Amino acid sequence: MLSDLYPSRKGTEPQILLRHDPVVYTDLQDGLVLTREQKEDFDRNGFLVLTNFFSDIEIRLLQRELEDLRLKSENIRQHREVISEPQSGDIRSIFRIHKNSRVFEKLSRDARLVNVARDILADDVYIHQSRLNYKPGFEGREFYWHSDFETWHVEDGLPNMRAISISVTLTENTPQNGALMMIPSSHRDFISCVGETPEEHYKESLKKQEYGVPDHHSLEYLANKGGIEQVTGPAGTVVIFDSNIMHGSNGNITPYSRSNAFFVYNSVQNRIRAPFGSLSPRPEFIAARKEIEIVMPEENALLSSSAQNWQQASRRTAG
Amino acid sequence: MLSDLYPSRKGTEPQILLRHDPVVYTDLQDGLVLTREQKEDFDRNGFLVLTNFFSDIEIRLLQRELEDLRLKSENIRQHREVISEPQSGDIRSIFRIHKNSRVFEKLSRDARLVNVARDILADDVYIHQSRLNYKPGFEGREFYWHSDFETWHVEDGLPNMRAISISVTLTENTPQNGALMMIPSSHRDFISCVGETPEEHYKESLKKQEYGVPDHHSLEYLANKGGIEQVTGPAGTVVIFDSNIMHGSNGNITPYSRSNAFFVYNSVQNRIRAPFGSLSPRPEFIAARKEIEIVMPEENALLSSSAQNWQQASRRTAG
Repeated sequence: MLSDLYPSRKGTEPQILLRHDPVVYTDLQDGLVLTREQKEDFDRNGFLVLTNFFSDIEIRLLQRELEDLRLKSENIRQHREVISEPQSGDIRSIFRIHKNSRVFEKLSRDARLVNVARDILADDVYIHQSRLNYKPGFEGREFYWHSDFETWHVEDGLPNMRAISISVTLTENTPQNGALMMIPSSHRDFISCVGETPEEHYKESLKKQEYGVPDHHSLEYLANKGGIEQVTGPAGTVVIFDSNIMHGSNGNITPYSRSNAFFVYNSVQNRIRAPFGSLSPRPEFIAARKEIEIVMPEENALLSSSAQNWQQASRRTAG
Repeated sequence: MLSDLYPSRKGTEPQILLRHDPVVYTDLQDGLVLTREQKEDFDRNGFLVLTNFFSDIEIRLLQRELEDLRLKSENIRQHREVISEPQSGDIRSIFRIHKNSRVFEKLSRDARLVNVARDILADDVYIHQSRLNYKPGFEGREFYWHSDFETWHVEDGLPNMRAISISVTLTENTPQNGALMMIPSSHRDFISCVGETPEEHYKESLKKQEYGVPDHHSLEYLANKGGIEQVTGPAGTVVIFDSNIMHGSNGNITPYSRSNAFFVYNSVQNRIRAPFGSLSPRPEFIAARKEIEIVMPEENALLSSSAQNWQQASRRTAG
C-alpha cells in the first residue's frame, strides 16, 4: 500500500505538516497559456485570478446554461447530483456538469482552461470533479475554511497534490455576496485535522462540512502569515487555485446570487486509489474513479458549442 | 390610543409604506458637530461614517474595556444581559453597557457622540439601548437584513422615527469579517413585515431573528434602488445610522473578531409606549422604559474616565 504522506482525521491533535509535492510541475518559464510571472505568482500564493478571459457572448452563453440547468434541476431535486440549501431548499450545487451539459462540457475542454492545467501540472489531465455552485441570494450558506485536497485525499484517495481547480464566475462576485476568500501561501502547509469520518459523510458534507475541519489555531497561524484575500470580479473571471490552498466563503444575504462553475483537473499520474481514511469510496459524480478521459485542449470550444446550438435552433425555427 | 403610523406583522402580505417622519430634525446648516454636508449626506443615505474621531489612547482604552467585559461575562453567562452564540457559546453581545461599564458610560456621554444625536434629532436625548457586539472570529453568526425601527416599534412601542444609532468599531472592520452592510436611502421606505410575533420572542431574536423579517421582494426593490454599501474601517470608526435604515451583516469565519459598541439615542419626545404589536413590553435592558435620563454632552468624557482609572490604579500601586 502507498504510504500516506498527508495523514488527517487520524490523531487527536491537529498538526501542521510540510507539503511534499511541487506546486508548479513545469519550469518557471512562459508556458502554453501562463506567463513566467503568472506561474511565479501561482507558485507563491497558491492561486491566480485572470480577467477578460471570455468574450461577452461566451459569458452570456454560460449564464443562460446556468439558468437552464437550475430550472431543469428544480424538477429533479431528488437526483443525487443536485444539492439543495439545507434551509431554503434552493439549488446549491449541481455536480458532473462536464457530462450533463453540452455547454459546460465544451467549457471544460476549452484550450484556455485545459492548457492552464497542463502549464501547471506538466501532464495530461482529466476531470476529477465538476460542479456549478449557485449560492443563491438571501439564503446562500457559507463554506467554512477547508483544503479541498484534505477531503479528496482522506475521502477519495487522491495521493498527491497534483490537481488544480479552475473556477469561472458566472455572476458578479462582490465582497458582499460571499466571494471566495483565500489565505495566500497556505498551500505550502498541510493542516492535519482531528476526528474520524463517518461512512456516507458526503451526503451531509456537501451541505455543511463537519469533518476535515481545520482547527482555529492552525487557521490563525496561516492567516497571520499570509493574510486573507477575497476574490472579486465581474462574471467571466477565472480563478485558478491549488488543491491544498485554504479557502472558504461567507454566506450571501444580498439579493444577488453568486454563481460559479468549477472544474478540477487532475494529473493522469495522480489517479485516485483507496481512500486514505479507510472509507468506502464516494460516488463517481463526486470523484471520478472509472470515468477517466484525458481532456485534450480544444480551441474555441465554447463558441463552437454555441454555434452548433444556434444552428440547431435556426433549423428548428426554419423547419 | 396613538394611531399606528407604521403597522407591521399584522397583515398577510408585505407592504412598502412611506416614511412620515423627518430624517434630520434640525435645519440643514452646520450644527454642533456635523457640517451641513454631513447632515445632507445623512439625510440622503440614512447613514454617515466618520473616521479619525478618537485618539489612539481612547481607542486602546475602549479595547481594553471590551476585553475585560468579555472575560467577566464568561463567568456570568446565565445573566440575561449576556447573549451567547447559538453554536459555539462564545459571547455574542453584552447589553446595557452605559450602565454596566464606567468606560462605556463615559463614551455614551461624550460630547462628540451626544452632539451628533442632538444635531440630527433637535432635542434632548436619552439612551434607548446600548450593547457591545463581539462577533467573534471563526463562528460569528450573520445578522439578516432588518430595520431596527420595525422591531422597536412593534416590540417596544417606539412611536416615531426619531432615534439614531451610533456604532463605534473596536476592532478593524473588513469586507471579510462581517462588517455592517447598509442599503443607502432605504430609510425612506418602511417595510411592513408579515407574521405575528410570539411572546418572549426577544430571547431567541437576539440570537437569530425570525419575526419582523423583510420579504425578498422588498429587499430586492431597496437594493436595486440604493445599492449595498459595506462599512469598513480601522478601530475607532464611528457609524451613525437612522433607526429605519435596512442593514445586516455577514457571518465571520476569519480568525479576527469584529467588535463594536452600539448606542441608540432617542428623542425625549419619542419615549416608548405600549408595544404596537400588542405584546408584553420587552425588559428594561433591551428598551429603556423607566430608566430615562437625559444625556448631557460632556467634553472629553472618555479621557476623563481614563484619567480617573489611571489615578486610581496609581493610588493602588502607591498604597
